[in-house]
Amino acid sequence: MMENIVTGPRVDVEPDILSEGCCGSQDCENKSLKFSDLSLEDVRKMNENFIKERNWDQFHSPRNVLLAMVGEFGELSEIFQWKGEVSEGLPELTEDERKHVGEEISDIFIYLVDFASRCHIDLSKAVIAKMAANAKKYPVDKAYGQANKYTDYQ
Amino acid sequence: MMENIVTGPRVDVEPDILSEGCCGSQDCENKSLKFSDLSLEDVRKMNENFIKERNWDQFHSPRNVLLAMVGEFGELSEIFQWKGEVSEGLPELTEDERKHVGEEISDIFIYLVDFASRCHIDLSKAVIAKMAANAKKYPVDKAYGQANKYTDYQ
Amino acid sequence: MMENIVTGPRVDVEPDILSEGCCGSQDCENKSLKFSDLSLEDVRKMNENFIKERNWDQFHSPRNVLLAMVGEFGELSEIFQWKGEVSEGLPELTEDERKHVGEEISDIFIYLVDFASRCHIDLSKAVIAKMAANAKKYPVDKAYGQANKYTDYQ
Amino acid sequence: MMENIVTGPRVDVEPDILSEGCCGSQDCENKSLKFSDLSLEDVRKMNENFIKERNWDQFHSPRNVLLAMVGEFGELSEIFQWKGEVSEGLPELTEDERKHVGEEISDIFIYLVDFASRCHIDLSKAVIAKMAANAKKYPVDKAYGQANKYTDYQ
Repeated sequence: MMENIVTGPRVDVEPDILSEGCCGSQDCENKSLKFSDLSLEDVRKMNENFIKERNWDQFHSPRNVLLAMVGEFGELSEIFQWKGEVSEGLPELTEDERKHVGEEISDIFIYLVDFASRCHIDLSKAVIAKMAANAKKYPVDKAYGQANKYTDYQ
Repeated sequence: MMENIVTGPRVDVEPDILSEGCCGSQDCENKSLKFSDLSLEDVRKMNENFIKERNWDQFHSPRNVLLAMVGEFGELSEIFQWKGEVSEGLPELTEDERKHVGEEISDIFIYLVDFASRCHIDLSKAVIAKMAANAKKYPVDKAYGQANKYTDYQ
Repeated sequence: MMENIVTGPRVDVEPDILSEGCCGSQDCENKSLKFSDLSLEDVRKMNENFIKERNWDQFHSPRNVLLAMVGEFGELSEIFQWKGEVSEGLPELTEDERKHVGEEISDIFIYLVDFASRCHIDLSKAVIAKMAANAKKYPVDKAYGQANKYTDYQ
Repeated sequence: MMENIVTGPRVDVEPDILSEGCCGSQDCENKSLKFSDLSLEDVRKMNENFIKERNWDQFHSPRNVLLAMVGEFGELSEIFQWKGEVSEGLPELTEDERKHVGEEISDIFIYLVDFASRCHIDLSKAVIAKMAANAKKYPVDKAYGQANKYTDYQ
């Protein structure tokens, strides 16, 4: 199935997206969840193939994709809207709701990758550059334990 | 510098995030931009280190991060708000504006990775699963060249 | 029916929300659409009664309502996401889609009124104050025909 | 000053937008805040004049205004992003922050009114119609004290 949309998938098709056995407690060993092996380029390529196969390039202008992303963002927010504060690992949500969260953040990510491509921006380089810029904007010695905006450190 | 926030960066620190030489024309060879080598786990690890060094875990509850993502989304939208329709590669924007777009989509992506971690969701697996689900929801033979919602194909 | 949710409605219950006869052309007489008589306080009161009758106050914390508003915003954006640029009066949309737009902007407005109330902010006064501030930020002689940010005029 | 942007303002120009004396306690008499006298049409007219004076109609296409609204939404979310849950009346925020909230919800409202006008939708009628529809979707006897989606009541 996946062969249609990506060459050489490195992750199984119907995985359990939730961290196994994670309980949300302070000393849970699974707390520092790792992501499975997948590159930004893998996602870009999968998405490119998906869209080409369906002849959808015509619809994916930058602002169309931008608004599509807002739409997915709204769907994600709806899951949380009446929940009040929720804890790490989302123990307050049902398993269906947690699965739904995984679907919506995936949709946002796929559109984000698509948007970067439409803008001819290398998302990998952009992220590295931004992380470096953030490190300068928020020096460890000044920003430690503070939620201030970076302008307060200048 | 980068050594502080990530072990073994595979991309240069101050890169030109924009695809070189891309001109926006239909037959531009650079059109099918590739992303540089970077994995979702690389980004997760960079972000985890960044936050730990600053003792910011206390602020990153799931809904806090969700709202922070909405904030970045707003900043991205502001760049496009008075532009009318824009073309692939954003030739209508200045170079500063294109760089700004790269910064904002990076911020969204970093928060998205952070949010997935807080939710204990393996974003790599979630994306693969969603791409497979999308392929089923939008069969090529029915969805070809159509912008309908998937419910129209059921 | 409406008597349940508001005292003394000044607008019919099932109105045609779309401007009659407006054709989208440059010289259409209906172009300067007027809104029917309704005050912000009317909407606040309607919403307050609606929520009290359903014992929903417990769910309407400020951040819950904020996320609910993001959700409605996403639904509005979805209507426009694959449309490309659209014209005044939305002639490119079907009548059902235009009606849907009316529903979503109403949901956003109702949540906005609710949010202001939860924050103990007098939305009427706030709007008047902001319009006055905007007039100062964008002096007519400098901002005429310009889409610049206000910081360019300081 | 205001005479430039609206004829016959019914609210003072530089008001205190915050409810006087409200303390956030359960039995505060000011809890049921009322909005000052202002109609949706007043806001529409103010905004129309503001834009005409600056020759800005050319920028206010429906999707431009939609994205501008997303931008303001982001600014509102930023105020709340690191706050955790906040209480009615926003006692956890500084007075400057509360004032800022008033500015951002005003910006959202002004763009919403502008957007409705561009779509040729009578926002007053649309809101009344949506409140009536909501009352049918969420019958008091079934929805009392429940945060379910309306589809659960059908």
